[in-house]
Amino acid sequence: MDFSITQIAAMLGGEVKGEGGEKIYMLAKIQDAKKGQLAFLSNPKYEQFIYTTQASAVIVKKDFQAKKNIAATLILVDDPYNSFTQLLEEYHKLISFQKTGVEEPSFLGDKSSLGKNIYRGAFSYIGHNVRIGDNVKIHPQVYIGDNTIIGNNTILHANVKVYADTQIGNNCVLHAGAVIGSDGFGFAPQADGTFKTIPQLGNVLIEDNVTIGANTVIDCATMFGDSTIIRKGVKLDNLIQIAHNVEVGKNTVIAAQTGISGSTKVGENVMIAGQVGIAGHLLIADRTQIGAQAGIAKSVKEEGQQILGYPAIDIKDYFRSYAIFKKLPDLNDRLRQLEKLLIKEETETKS
Amino acid sequence: MDFSITQIAAMLGGEVKGEGGEKIYMLAKIQDAKKGQLAFLSNPKYEQFIYTTQASAVIVKKDFQAKKNIAATLILVDDPYNSFTQLLEEYHKLISFQKTGVEEPSFLGDKSSLGKNIYRGAFSYIGHNVRIGDNVKIHPQVYIGDNTIIGNNTILHANVKVYADTQIGNNCVLHAGAVIGSDGFGFAPQADGTFKTIPQLGNVLIEDNVTIGANTVIDCATMFGDSTIIRKGVKLDNLIQIAHNVEVGKNTVIAAQTGISGSTKVGENVMIAGQVGIAGHLLIADRTQIGAQAGIAKSVKEEGQQILGYPAIDIKDYFRSYAIFKKLPDLNDRLRQLEKLLIKEETETKS
Amino acid sequence: MDFSITQIAAMLGGEVKGEGGEKIYMLAKIQDAKKGQLAFLSNPKYEQFIYTTQASAVIVKKDFQAKKNIAATLILVDDPYNSFTQLLEEYHKLISFQKTGVEEPSFLGDKSSLGKNIYRGAFSYIGHNVRIGDNVKIHPQVYIGDNTIIGNNTILHANVKVYADTQIGNNCVLHAGAVIGSDGFGFAPQADGTFKTIPQLGNVLIEDNVTIGANTVIDCATMFGDSTIIRKGVKLDNLIQIAHNVEVGKNTVIAAQTGISGSTKVGENVMIAGQVGIAGHLLIADRTQIGAQAGIAKSVKEEGQQILGYPAIDIKDYFRSYAIFKKLPDLNDRLRQLEKLLIKEETETKS
Repeated sequence: MDFSITQIAAMLGGEVKGEGGEKIYMLAKIQDAKKGQLAFLSNPKYEQFIYTTQASAVIVKKDFQAKKNIAATLILVDDPYNSFTQLLEEYHKLISFQKTGVEEPSFLGDKSSLGKNIYRGAFSYIGHNVRIGDNVKIHPQVYIGDNTIIGNNTILHANVKVYADTQIGNNCVLHAGAVIGSDGFGFAPQADGTFKTIPQLGNVLIEDNVTIGANTVIDCATMFGDSTIIRKGVKLDNLIQIAHNVEVGKNTVIAAQTGISGSTKVGENVMIAGQVGIAGHLLIADRTQIGAQAGIAKSVKEEGQQILGYPAIDIKDYFRSYAIFKKLPDLNDRLRQLEKLLIKEETETKS
Repeated sequence: MDFSITQIAAMLGGEVKGEGGEKIYMLAKIQDAKKGQLAFLSNPKYEQFIYTTQASAVIVKKDFQAKKNIAATLILVDDPYNSFTQLLEEYHKLISFQKTGVEEPSFLGDKSSLGKNIYRGAFSYIGHNVRIGDNVKIHPQVYIGDNTIIGNNTILHANVKVYADTQIGNNCVLHAGAVIGSDGFGFAPQADGTFKTIPQLGNVLIEDNVTIGANTVIDCATMFGDSTIIRKGVKLDNLIQIAHNVEVGKNTVIAAQTGISGSTKVGENVMIAGQVGIAGHLLIADRTQIGAQAGIAKSVKEEGQQILGYPAIDIKDYFRSYAIFKKLPDLNDRLRQLEKLLIKEETETKS
Repeated sequence: MDFSITQIAAMLGGEVKGEGGEKIYMLAKIQDAKKGQLAFLSNPKYEQFIYTTQASAVIVKKDFQAKKNIAATLILVDDPYNSFTQLLEEYHKLISFQKTGVEEPSFLGDKSSLGKNIYRGAFSYIGHNVRIGDNVKIHPQVYIGDNTIIGNNTILHANVKVYADTQIGNNCVLHAGAVIGSDGFGFAPQADGTFKTIPQLGNVLIEDNVTIGANTVIDCATMFGDSTIIRKGVKLDNLIQIAHNVEVGKNTVIAAQTGISGSTKVGENVMIAGQVGIAGHLLIADRTQIGAQAGIAKSVKEEGQQILGYPAIDIKDYFRSYAIFKKLPDLNDRLRQLEKLLIKEETETKS
């Protein structure tokens, strides 16, 4: 980052109050900021810090009335929090895309084509017949197998591993250690108790705007021409397992350590918490919300349900049942009490 | 793939009907197939496609009677599905083993010996005193520590990491990101609340025909001369944790994200579903079947049981109990009802 | 290892009985030991082996009385088990720190500084402006992003991935495939159903004496100046997920495949078993013990509790409730029985 206060104010459509020539190198919280840094004041609780901050500039609301002297230059805007967030995003984009060129040694196979403004880190491997779009950032030690296609503005962090024949869209982010396109887990039991490997010949298709977390694994589809599919806008956290032939619908969000078994189709805008397990060959309806550690053993047909437990049921029902579960010993005692009473009565009645 | 239709027919013991000279480059489903590709027709439901397919050849049953004109050459066999599966397997073997030679830069330590027909991908690392058999495929960025021994026809996909002193058999497949031989999790609590590391000095032994999934981890044994052992024919899915000194018996199959704690011995032909947790120092009898997300807190002694829950119990018992669990609030109400009734009676009786 | 028996005896403060000049190359169990190896005898159960062992030397208790002839040289000490453990630790340290120098090719960015006695394996990547202390062992294919700081005596095993701006202390061990500093999972839902990425600009701070298991992931904090923090002496097993802004307190031990959600603060000397899930924004009190597969949905305020279940409750209560859970069908039958009885009585009473 290397803009003057005046330049930043112009970006934000704000007004400079004070000296605008100084360069800003970093963003910071108002209580921590140092010279060369830019902070913001939105919550009145933090007002005290504006009078002591060492920040070179502070973004404040247009109508902000200072009660004491302020050393920092001010940038006056309508909504300081929004303006700061906007700068954070710009800054993040800047650092995410700042690397370009090739660090050697790196490997580039035959007949592979590269777009403009690409970064290829040291020890990165691009196989044969690969097509890579513009602004793609391939960090050190990334592996991209033969015949893979990658769209524009996609970032592959250190050591992402992409098997041959994968297709990845635009604006995707794949985090370190993610594996795309490993063999599906398919084995045919033989009469002698051994298992024969079912060849896995499909691929993985990842659409635009998808984020894939660190060490997450997505297996390829089994058959030629079939794909395991991650639709537009899907966000996958770390250490997730997506098995062969799964399809994850548009804008679905999945938290860490969840696993989805083979051929299951997850709908759109589904939210899945951490450590959830979903069995194979199921359908999960759009907008389903699945609580942490739930086990999904059958399809969810009605949209927008919230479910929990193993096997998962309606979340309110689960908690109602669990409330009684916690009192089961007491419930058992009460039952025994009644049994005693009744047997006594029975006996008395009979006698 | 680069065989003529006639050559493929010969491989399958089939008969060519039509022009046999054309080259086949790929296999495909009959509804998707293009020129230069080979499809099959087995299920009569798909018969319509044989009249419109662009495939260069189609495998059909010997006694197939065409109802219309067919552009493709036919290969007549006894069982088209079996023949096609056979070709898929041959094709898979072909592409799995097609890479040979060395891509540079790659690292080869002192005193290491390599068999025939090996592939060493760029940025792969083979330490000192390593012995590697014939037809081994070491993909880019693989790490093989000192003193490791690897048998014939074993495939290590991109970035597999094998610690020093590991032994791996013949015909194994290790998927991207798998870690073999990391330290067992052993720490001795000290009086001051800190933990002292227990040195982990054993190794990992993987027998023949084992498959290990992407990002799966197998820790080494604790003591010198001891091994964490994966027996012949075991199939491990992705993101599995196998702790120090575990032994997994012959032909056992374990689904993704399952974890097995230290020193547990899993029997032969056991089937373990996804996200199962098994405590340490247990025995799991042969042919046990463990349902998804189960937690195994004690040994399973009787062979062939199906278990589920936490702690796991017989699967039918679990479901029977869970059926009532779902109705616990209702059960609680019924009990309260009886209590009211009885108290009323008691009171009436006494009064 | 390459010391004479006399030298080893001197290290242990022990006395040599027999020929002390022979060289010891390895440690071994008494029943397996060969020439050039050193064993120990502590448990009397194993005494038989001392008369037949091929070990060059055996560590025994000072007052050990041989009943037969012993070929091996003896080293007499106060506590053979302790002495042997001490040697194991020394040996482990020796092999852990034996590698030094640089294997080429390796990548070293601008303005980065390295301490003394460092190992940089082939294909390792050190970014720009990185500071690395003495005796640090950077194994092959490790990735260290820009501006990272690493203390003394820290070991990064093959292919550890450290994102930019991370800080790692002294005497840490990071196992193969661990990812430090990947983006936190933060996405803001938009009106059209898509998600906007919240820039992740904080870092990860790992204090001294921390162990991090294979393929474990620790995300960075969200805001500038904030850190995800792993305190002194923490031991993390394999395949663990630590989300953004989490803090794990001093000497806390966490078993494999556990996940901790964003902004949760785990206390000191906490013990967390495998496959546990902890929700976000919670506090876990010091010395809490969490059983395997538990789901923690709210803060644990009282120190030293043992908890289990989902949501987790006191471990004894969980087991008491689970004992009844297993008998729920029976309990349901008993209740039905009473209902029948009472209805009969009611009817009889009324009639």
